[in-house]
Amino acid sequence: MLIGRGMSTWFTHLDATTSCSSVSVLSAVLRRQRFLIRSLGGNPDQNCSVKMNVFEADVLNVIRRITPTLDLSRHKGQAGKIAVVGGCREYTGAPYFAAISALKIGADLSHVFCTKDAAPIIKSYSPELIVHPVLEESYNVKDEDKGFIANKVLSEVNKWMERFDCLVIGPGLGRDPFLLDCVSEILKHARQLNIPLVIDGDGLFLVTNSLGLVSGYPLAVLTPNVNEYKRLVKRVLDCEVNDDESAAELLSLVKGIGGATVLRKGKSDLICDGDSVFSVSISGSPRRCGGQGDILSGTVAVFLSWARQHVLLAEEDLGIRTMNPTVIGCVAGSALLRKAASITFQNKKRATLTSDIIEYLGMSLDEICPM
Amino acid sequence: MLIGRGMSTWFTHLDATTSCSSVSVLSAVLRRQRFLIRSLGGNPDQNCSVKMNVFEADVLNVIRRITPTLDLSRHKGQAGKIAVVGGCREYTGAPYFAAISALKIGADLSHVFCTKDAAPIIKSYSPELIVHPVLEESYNVKDEDKGFIANKVLSEVNKWMERFDCLVIGPGLGRDPFLLDCVSEILKHARQLNIPLVIDGDGLFLVTNSLGLVSGYPLAVLTPNVNEYKRLVKRVLDCEVNDDESAAELLSLVKGIGGATVLRKGKSDLICDGDSVFSVSISGSPRRCGGQGDILSGTVAVFLSWARQHVLLAEEDLGIRTMNPTVIGCVAGSALLRKAASITFQNKKRATLTSDIIEYLGMSLDEICPM
Repeated sequence: MLIGRGMSTWFTHLDATTSCSSVSVLSAVLRRQRFLIRSLGGNPDQNCSVKMNVFEADVLNVIRRITPTLDLSRHKGQAGKIAVVGGCREYTGAPYFAAISALKIGADLSHVFCTKDAAPIIKSYSPELIVHPVLEESYNVKDEDKGFIANKVLSEVNKWMERFDCLVIGPGLGRDPFLLDCVSEILKHARQLNIPLVIDGDGLFLVTNSLGLVSGYPLAVLTPNVNEYKRLVKRVLDCEVNDDESAAELLSLVKGIGGATVLRKGKSDLICDGDSVFSVSISGSPRRCGGQGDILSGTVAVFLSWARQHVLLAEEDLGIRTMNPTVIGCVAGSALLRKAASITFQNKKRATLTSDIIEYLGMSLDEICPM
Repeated sequence: MLIGRGMSTWFTHLDATTSCSSVSVLSAVLRRQRFLIRSLGGNPDQNCSVKMNVFEADVLNVIRRITPTLDLSRHKGQAGKIAVVGGCREYTGAPYFAAISALKIGADLSHVFCTKDAAPIIKSYSPELIVHPVLEESYNVKDEDKGFIANKVLSEVNKWMERFDCLVIGPGLGRDPFLLDCVSEILKHARQLNIPLVIDGDGLFLVTNSLGLVSGYPLAVLTPNVNEYKRLVKRVLDCEVNDDESAAELLSLVKGIGGATVLRKGKSDLICDGDSVFSVSISGSPRRCGGQGDILSGTVAVFLSWARQHVLLAEEDLGIRTMNPTVIGCVAGSALLRKAASITFQNKKRATLTSDIIEYLGMSLDEICPM
């Protein structure tokens, strides 16, 4: 059930308990939600403790608090090192969109790990990206070489892994079984190193079929669109999507997966880490051109890294410290993409393409956090 | 015979019966033409029933009625999924122009199916396109492998086919016999699935030599230029082009092909589906730089998809429902390209290139259908 106070509501804390009797919210969760509400500027006693509205100003405030200040003493890498695992013979645009978006909002370094075929093309889109042509697809690997090649791929990726603040897994990854097996191993290794993961596109295809890859990992974020969400619900809850119970259903889904955060993309983006359900409904662009999900995965990765860093450093900022950095990353990424898409649409109208939105990311963030 | 009422005439319904005695127009056709005339704002009794003028306002009105409104509840794909089959070792610009034009006027997804050599280049033009490197040319295939490779090509393309609202077949396709054999099979499969086809460039070379590929298929649109039209007339009517009888000749040609729509590009674009002949004569650009035909094929594909969707949904819109969506697609695509080319020429003069016109497509459509 969405609780709104007027048209300006961007970011709504949803009541999931009243809409699904099967979801029990424990008292510890309620206490935590009171903290969340307070940290986002609301009054937990004004409504029932699990219902409240949080406004545009709150989202903007969260973005301002986690976005690192820039000063001349900082050095390369401190504002974020992101890697995208994706890009194959068929898809090259998606990993580019994710990786360049990370740079455009302020990350210092953005890497792409893709197949050998995809690398020259992704490199040609921008000299700003560091593109590693290391993944392999089945058509290029003999059966007898698979073990050797898989080890080589893993060792190539793993030697970089510790440097990254977040991995985005999936944009333009494709569904080649050998490639997905290698990516499963990359994902397991990232998990061992406690590196946050944003999983989108074909990464969600992989994870939906192997839930153990993210189950019990609180630093994983899944960002399904309409169809990817349908498949997740079918796999985890063994039922069809019920839009009348969207918050409760999402809470059940996240509990079913166990320990990850899910950002369900839609008219409003719904975000749940198993404790709370948030809705970001700032108006974006009505243009649904392909690639906007890739921008989201790149921006969520950066904000999640910044939120995590902020939570670790800001001892005095109790409000933020009680929040899950994956939730902050999702809320901030969703709000920024929507703002940038809305500005782009005002300028480009029906001709709006994903590349145009990327050009407005920086300006949109600067409007929120002026230098 | 062109019938005009002043300089502002964009879109003229032509009298084909009086200018060619060999063309008989049945009474059913006349009745349908009266419907068309009425739906486009004219009075069928003002002139002879198959002669009348339809003005700029009518074309704009048709474009406004079929162009989908954008709202936040829509999701990716609903505004159109287009695929271009074209692009070989020699030609890469043409399929790019067709595919990017589709996106620029509002399609959500635009794919290209091309040869392995062409794919990296087309991908490098824009990360917005999804480019499939699946077609093969003879120089790359041994005779003994042809059957196997052809099956592989078809299975790669066919697994995507049902997703598309329209295929554009031909831009930059080349004339390699093995490749054209594969494209014939792709075309047959699309036809089985009732997917509209816009056929241009080397696709017309293929179809002119194998008329059965489009004969009897009302969802096929052929968009010949001067030379392609000459070859079609020679093949179907076994005569030279007679510009004094252009409307009647086009009607004969379309009847000879049987069931497809033809858009004859020229000073005025003539469009005929076998029932009526329309003329779009809004002034475009005097620059005849290569590639404008590719823009046309991409825009006709999108408008045809929108018209088809509109005709299926708009039960109350009797005027549009009585019109053939292929004709609507051609009229709208022709008018929009001319408008965009004219605006571009005012700005870029002799330096006008096809890429410049593509940049004005969105603005031109927005002037017709403001948000």
